[in-house]
Amino acid sequence: MNTEQCLGFKAAGVHAGLKKEGELDLGLIYSETPAVLAAVFTRNQVQAAPVVLDRQRVASGRSRAVIVNSGNANCCTGNRGLQDAERMGAAAAGALGIAESDVLVASTGVIGQPLPVEKIEAAAPVLVEHLAADGFDHLARAIMTTDTEPKQVFRAGRAGDRPYHIMAVAKGAGMIRPDMATMLCFACTDAEVPQAFLGQALRRAVDASFNRISIDGDTSTNDTVILMANGQSGARLATAADEEHFAALLEDMLLELARWIVRDGEGVNKTVEIRVQGARTPAEALQVADTIAHSPLVKTAFFGQDANWGRILAAAGRAGVALDPDRLALYFDDVQMVAAGVGCGPEAEARATAVLKRPTFAVTLDLNLGTATARLLTCDFSLDYVRINADYRT
Amino acid sequence: MNTEQCLGFKAAGVHAGLKKEGELDLGLIYSETPAVLAAVFTRNQVQAAPVVLDRQRVASGRSRAVIVNSGNANCCTGNRGLQDAERMGAAAAGALGIAESDVLVASTGVIGQPLPVEKIEAAAPVLVEHLAADGFDHLARAIMTTDTEPKQVFRAGRAGDRPYHIMAVAKGAGMIRPDMATMLCFACTDAEVPQAFLGQALRRAVDASFNRISIDGDTSTNDTVILMANGQSGARLATAADEEHFAALLEDMLLELARWIVRDGEGVNKTVEIRVQGARTPAEALQVADTIAHSPLVKTAFFGQDANWGRILAAAGRAGVALDPDRLALYFDDVQMVAAGVGCGPEAEARATAVLKRPTFAVTLDLNLGTATARLLTCDFSLDYVRINADYRT
Repeated sequence: MNTEQCLGFKAAGVHAGLKKEGELDLGLIYSETPAVLAAVFTRNQVQAAPVVLDRQRVASGRSRAVIVNSGNANCCTGNRGLQDAERMGAAAAGALGIAESDVLVASTGVIGQPLPVEKIEAAAPVLVEHLAADGFDHLARAIMTTDTEPKQVFRAGRAGDRPYHIMAVAKGAGMIRPDMATMLCFACTDAEVPQAFLGQALRRAVDASFNRISIDGDTSTNDTVILMANGQSGARLATAADEEHFAALLEDMLLELARWIVRDGEGVNKTVEIRVQGARTPAEALQVADTIAHSPLVKTAFFGQDANWGRILAAAGRAGVALDPDRLALYFDDVQMVAAGVGCGPEAEARATAVLKRPTFAVTLDLNLGTATARLLTCDFSLDYVRINADYRT
Repeated sequence: MNTEQCLGFKAAGVHAGLKKEGELDLGLIYSETPAVLAAVFTRNQVQAAPVVLDRQRVASGRSRAVIVNSGNANCCTGNRGLQDAERMGAAAAGALGIAESDVLVASTGVIGQPLPVEKIEAAAPVLVEHLAADGFDHLARAIMTTDTEPKQVFRAGRAGDRPYHIMAVAKGAGMIRPDMATMLCFACTDAEVPQAFLGQALRRAVDASFNRISIDGDTSTNDTVILMANGQSGARLATAADEEHFAALLEDMLLELARWIVRDGEGVNKTVEIRVQGARTPAEALQVADTIAHSPLVKTAFFGQDANWGRILAAAGRAGVALDPDRLALYFDDVQMVAAGVGCGPEAEARATAVLKRPTFAVTLDLNLGTATARLLTCDFSLDYVRINADYRT
């Protein structure tokens, strides 16, 4: 018996026929009682139909269920796509016996093909039959696209004397970058959380996690993070300390999912933390880190396990932030490669080469202009990334 | 006898020992008489020593020679690097018997390793001995890094009754993007061109060519375009029509080199022109085109010959330009894939798949918001790109 449960929440995943080979492709998360809601959506201006629908429905601040499919993004599908998203929600609502307005919808997969909504409607009753308190693993599998493993995390917290729980599942893989990605994350807690604070906590956690990772710089039309709280544990966030404890737990678990998403990114062999320090402002630090984290030349060098620090300095130099090249210092983990803008020589190169062989390491660039810092998690750019994305639709 | 010559200009390329296997790695272009000069350099803030040196020397508006090596970028090499760049120029000046201030210096290759300037000094007299009016092919070979072929173009023009000539060589390959790249271009003309106009014409030609191509979004620390005019043909640009004719010839030849550079980019199988139209402003059109041209997901789909138009719309949606997704139209060459933000269906897909198999094609995105347009030349993102750049230093 799995003890990792959120009281009053159930989940399920079934095969509706959208993906090949009988893989799970339709998931549901359901609260037996009304729940308050917070959500964060993609900032991409091209938004999938389910995102358009959800943006309307989350305004109420309440929800009971999320139905989600993989295999088709229901994006760039026009009015029919919106109707299909509504039908998908209605199918869940009907099978659950709740109001349509209490159901959110999410999709992930190929853009621009009509959603085979009839398959979803046919599978909805079966999906509801499969709902179980320990069904989150099936849900996590049902939202996978090129992910190689389901991603589920769990935390237990306390408010006053009472324990509560937070559960979250996510999918990522490609199209990951700050400001979200084709990443979906569904989280729930049985704590009793004021709706306004739930939104603050989620925004903070997303900014510190999913908005600090990058696979390839592309963002998606479908990114969605949804968090529901139903209070069924009886644990109420009554004090500022309770709220901080909850927010920290949530941030920590979303960060775990974010790191997992990068590690399981398409064709990823290395996860690399880009740290920029000594910047004049946090925004400038982030801009430099972002440019390094997205440089194909830097990322292919990571793949080649090549301590090609010149490419990192060149990326920083084109970031659009005023630098003093003669002040730059660069480190691979604790090995200093560059001091005052000049390479530290063959011994440093040899030591750095050992760092590059690690599956995970940090690149620290010190601009020596101020005290602001930024961190981003990125990955190498591999042959498999190209293979996966060249063949994605075939 | 090669008739493609610029009167009074000679060029050479020799092996100085910076590259492996006896490849040409040191080049020289020389005007027998004083020449006026225009130059454009990288906007990257991390600038190689030869770029720093040249920026000082071009202020005079006059030059006689450019010495250039491949195999080492002489970048992030500190004070020693600046001294090495000066020694490299002095070696050419000494062997040519001209003033050091009349020599420009360029380098391309790996960043961060000391330049073996002694090899260049030893080879300089041999280099000068090899100078010949038809030596531009050797020069073109001497500046290659991962280029697979030397790139040389020639044009003949007329001013009044007199013919003149323009010759240019270039190297590109990796690290190409708008605002230049590790690309070098050396051009010369025997026309008599006012120095101020030479600069205008070069800026216009570079903006229309090298600043409109992209291989991987990375820019270099060493980008340099130099144009010398020595007037030895006796053809003088005396009228506005003469100037326009010259500027158009120059733009056309640099565009030919730019397209060649993309076609010969690292691991490139497809050259793709990204055309954005119907934008509110040219800057917004360029921003959308730039985001599409650099999207790894778009470029891997090109490699896979997959008409995955959803990725193109998704890239446009994150470009930071206000769009109306319901107005978007997309074409692969003349095949319309998207109308009013919605895919045009299986027949369009089938026809587009045929377009994607072509070695070169155009992607046109119409925002339907205004009349501004922009064009960029990009390429696919291939397995070979990753292979080449993972192993570049080994």
